[in-house]
Amino acid sequence: MIILGVDPGLAITGFGVVRIEHNRHTVLGYGAIRTAAGEETARRLDTIYQELSRLIAEFHPHCLAVEELFFNKNSATALAVGQARGVAILAASHAGLPVHEYTPLQVKTAVTGYGRAAKEQVAYMVRMLLGLDSTPQPDDVTDALAICICHGYNAHNWGRREQ
Amino acid sequence: MIILGVDPGLAITGFGVVRIEHNRHTVLGYGAIRTAAGEETARRLDTIYQELSRLIAEFHPHCLAVEELFFNKNSATALAVGQARGVAILAASHAGLPVHEYTPLQVKTAVTGYGRAAKEQVAYMVRMLLGLDSTPQPDDVTDALAICICHGYNAHNWGRREQ
Repeated sequence: MIILGVDPGLAITGFGVVRIEHNRHTVLGYGAIRTAAGEETARRLDTIYQELSRLIAEFHPHCLAVEELFFNKNSATALAVGQARGVAILAASHAGLPVHEYTPLQVKTAVTGYGRAAKEQVAYMVRMLLGLDSTPQPDDVTDALAICICHGYNAHNWGRREQ
Repeated sequence: MIILGVDPGLAITGFGVVRIEHNRHTVLGYGAIRTAAGEETARRLDTIYQELSRLIAEFHPHCLAVEELFFNKNSATALAVGQARGVAILAASHAGLPVHEYTPLQVKTAVTGYGRAAKEQVAYMVRMLLGLDSTPQPDDVTDALAICICHGYNAHNWGRREQ
């Protein structure tokens, strides 16, 4: 199974593409889609949509995995992230991909075994599980890869339950 | 000039289509795009995108006008609204329409002449300016029509300044 993990944001959308087979992870690609603060919102959102559509066409992932976000302070940020997130989900939907959402707790638990793991621990486990020499930057990219691992773990367990 | 005004939301997206010529307003259409709470987010967002794309194809508006929102309490709502808003802006962008954003203050000032006007006063003026017998329901529809009026007012003034 190939998973496209996305950590959406208007300025930076981190993405990771991971193939998971028999509990073995292979990173196919990762990076960040960046849009300039000076550009119109419409243009920035379209850049995110187009780049994700391009990634889907290139890597043929089976699904999109995205974090389910909760904000408890900055609602202006929530609105901006929401716009980027909506567009990312739409790009997946238009390509016929199912969308899976995970809470930060689920992601941390899947990646480190501990729901309150520190950021550094998550980054460490992402490197270990994916066999990377260094932590991908910016953080959004590592987060996107963590979401891929989380979905792989959950999809694997679902499969077992069904058997 | 034909304006598509939208008040985006995940559950209800109000829309209005208004033609404005020489300060005369003609309502071409209005209504609400509704999505069910039980449906997947991806499907709900795609419904909003498809319905707005359909309206654009039907009415050939010259632009999309949308409220610039600020939240100071519920950031979960901000995230949900942000997703719907992102998809609405993308639908306009994909159809080649420019997107204009207005603050609630600008909308109220344009429609009633008073930036702190009550909801009822805005609804009253929308009815008066558009020659409607009753206030369109739900509120999101009236808000979308108010945004159309606001953009018409501002576009008209821009035109004058340029002369």
